Amino acid sequence: MSALELTRQYHFSAGHRLESPTLSSEENARLYGQCYRPHGHNYLVEVTVQGRRDPLTGMAADLGALDAAVKRLVLDRVDHYDLSSAVPALEGIPTTGENLARAFWEWIAPALPAGALRRVAVVETDNNIFEYRG
Amino acid sequence: MSALELTRQYHFSAGHRLESPTLSSEENARLYGQCYRPHGHNYLVEVTVQGRRDPLTGMAADLGALDAAVKRLVLDRVDHYDLSSAVPALEGIPTTGENLARAFWEWIAPALPAGALRRVAVVETDNNIFEYRG
Amino acid sequence: MSALELTRQYHFSAGHRLESPTLSSEENARLYGQCYRPHGHNYLVEVTVQGRRDPLTGMAADLGALDAAVKRLVLDRVDHYDLSSAVPALEGIPTTGENLARAFWEWIAPALPAGALRRVAVVETDNNIFEYRG
Amino acid sequence: MSALELTRQYHFSAGHRLESPTLSSEENARLYGQCYRPHGHNYLVEVTVQGRRDPLTGMAADLGALDAAVKRLVLDRVDHYDLSSAVPALEGIPTTGENLARAFWEWIAPALPAGALRRVAVVETDNNIFEYRG
Amino acid sequence: MSALELTRQYHFSAGHRLESPTLSSEENARLYGQCYRPHGHNYLVEVTVQGRRDPLTGMAADLGALDAAVKRLVLDRVDHYDLSSAVPALEGIPTTGENLARAFWEWIAPALPAGALRRVAVVETDNNIFEYRG
Amino acid sequence: MSALELTRQYHFSAGHRLESPTLSSEENARLYGQCYRPHGHNYLVEVTVQGRRDPLTGMAADLGALDAAVKRLVLDRVDHYDLSSAVPALEGIPTTGENLARAFWEWIAPALPAGALRRVAVVETDNNIFEYRG
Repeated sequence: MSALELTRQYHFSAGHRLESPTLSSEENARLYGQCYRPHGHNYLVEVTVQGRRDPLTGMAADLGALDAAVKRLVLDRVDHYDLSSAVPALEGIPTTGENLARAFWEWIAPALPAGALRRVAVVETDNNIFEYRG
Repeated sequence: MSALELTRQYHFSAGHRLESPTLSSEENARLYGQCYRPHGHNYLVEVTVQGRRDPLTGMAADLGALDAAVKRLVLDRVDHYDLSSAVPALEGIPTTGENLARAFWEWIAPALPAGALRRVAVVETDNNIFEYRG
Repeated sequence: MSALELTRQYHFSAGHRLESPTLSSEENARLYGQCYRPHGHNYLVEVTVQGRRDPLTGMAADLGALDAAVKRLVLDRVDHYDLSSAVPALEGIPTTGENLARAFWEWIAPALPAGALRRVAVVETDNNIFEYRG
Repeated sequence: MSALELTRQYHFSAGHRLESPTLSSEENARLYGQCYRPHGHNYLVEVTVQGRRDPLTGMAADLGALDAAVKRLVLDRVDHYDLSSAVPALEGIPTTGENLARAFWEWIAPALPAGALRRVAVVETDNNIFEYRG
Repeated sequence: MSALELTRQYHFSAGHRLESPTLSSEENARLYGQCYRPHGHNYLVEVTVQGRRDPLTGMAADLGALDAAVKRLVLDRVDHYDLSSAVPALEGIPTTGENLARAFWEWIAPALPAGALRRVAVVETDNNIFEYRG
Repeated sequence: MSALELTRQYHFSAGHRLESPTLSSEENARLYGQCYRPHGHNYLVEVTVQGRRDPLTGMAADLGALDAAVKRLVLDRVDHYDLSSAVPALEGIPTTGENLARAFWEWIAPALPAGALRRVAVVETDNNIFEYRG
């Protein structure tokens, strides 16, 4: 593990409902409760990367490139969209915080140097934090 | 104006889209931009009431009654719902922050002592605060 | 009203219970519920003053003097104390947010230039804000 | 370690004083300073659990069951109580953040699947964070 | 006064020092203390406007136009600059919160409909809030 | 690793610019963009230490001693100073978050018991968190 980790925060607003495609409407309502109803959130996404400090620049990661990757691969796909119906890459999977954190990891990781990505956290509300370390 | 004002904060999560029923789809898209797409927010609602301090109890308002009124008249209607399609009382009006603040005022005010309600604020995201004083 | 208002935030931690000296134990328990039990809070106090901008210094209030007054007259009396039993100046009054805001106003106002004090807010928890304008 | 960790936040308000039963009053005052005086806090508790994602539901933990356990085993015992005198399970131990984090861990862990609990954090004030990993 | 007020938050990071051009170095050091030394802040600016709700759109202000005006007239001039040496429009005035709030008001007001601007707040640190209502 | 970790938060305000002494002015401007211009921040520093709980006191670290060390070794050197020109210990190194986190670690670690320091985080803005574990 590198001694240096850098975390950037990103925000997006999206609609969603929790729904498993393999369950009936009654089963979904029982399982997910009020989250089965279409609603939405202001999501906070934290992306943590590690890197080695370049002594010349004092920087351990190219945060501009990270921002561009997160914007293109995550925010442009989900911000001001309905996650449950308007995001092809999420089709057929319940849009739980767990699945979102994992999906965002899989979308971002290939665009970063191997091993750079350390953690993706999805904060759905202040009280609900989902962290994925792939 | 009373010397004492009390503010309570409430939270709900809801879906919505900005859409005016009198406009075409193209006009709505031009006017509201990305907010015309179905998305959602974690909303914060602040309700400010004034009152006279009861010297015996040291209290100027019945916050338990306020909470019950806000729960019944606002939160139960909007929390984990889609504001643009599943809230009859909002039907036909664009669900802007301005309209939400005004609607919540009109829903709550009759349940409080005359003149008690002073301000309803709807915080859609940290950067967008809508305040209504009826 | 002056065009300029300045607000400073202060923090203290204190114990308290809500209790009216004129009520029986049963009546206090019924009126205040769980707040009748000894507990405590991290309090946030906001003090807002108005002033005229001194063109030479660009300042409208002596914030150092304000800090010193609030420290001596409020924080030194209440920080890390039990408000309901260890603060003589609060003896016999229920330590509601309303009463605290009013008491702090009365303690601070005489130490400031006449008319300078505009607002004292006591934030007991994020969801409970009590404002007093004397 | 599982790739998925979920954190929930809980709040309670309580009184306390730092006091070691084996020390004299003078020794306690010297050791704990102003914290030996009865005071109180708004406490934030973070509980982190790990789990395996159920592909059907997209969930890695039963957050409803977690909430119920934390409510019954922690919040119902400490919220709006004085930690130093009214909580039998804390009797005789100094109510430092370290001891609270450890106690809450021990209260919660047996109610969760083996190995599920990963971290209990007690935030006494914004500046004081105590984390326990049992 | 309109019943509707809308507040937008903006952020910028800048260096500054408090220094009055009419005072000697010793006098500045005595007056401003450590703030006479070059340092800096993450500033938060709140801009509050009032407006009448357009029944067709449900909006009371053109927030896009407000954002563009604040960007062009405030943020582009001050973000990632040293306020005390690199902002011509602030030359010769001490860069206190009072003066910044007043300057930003004067820069923004002419770009908005007459009477629309209601309040400019400059938050230098969490504990220092300067509000100007011209 | 000890089961107990304690984190304290500290704040300071400072000016800086990103500049590598080995690069030309044009190269610095290209590399660091707007951060090459003198500006500033409200910095948040988190210091995490581990320790063993003393059963007598219930404490795992001497937070008073930690505060004193951080004040003397970090805050007194950087608060209300320009990091890029007025802090001898930072001379010649770019004042990136990476370098600051590493420098603060090196300044603090020798003053603490061996192995006690676990993490230094520098939060430059809400969106930029730099963590160093030496």
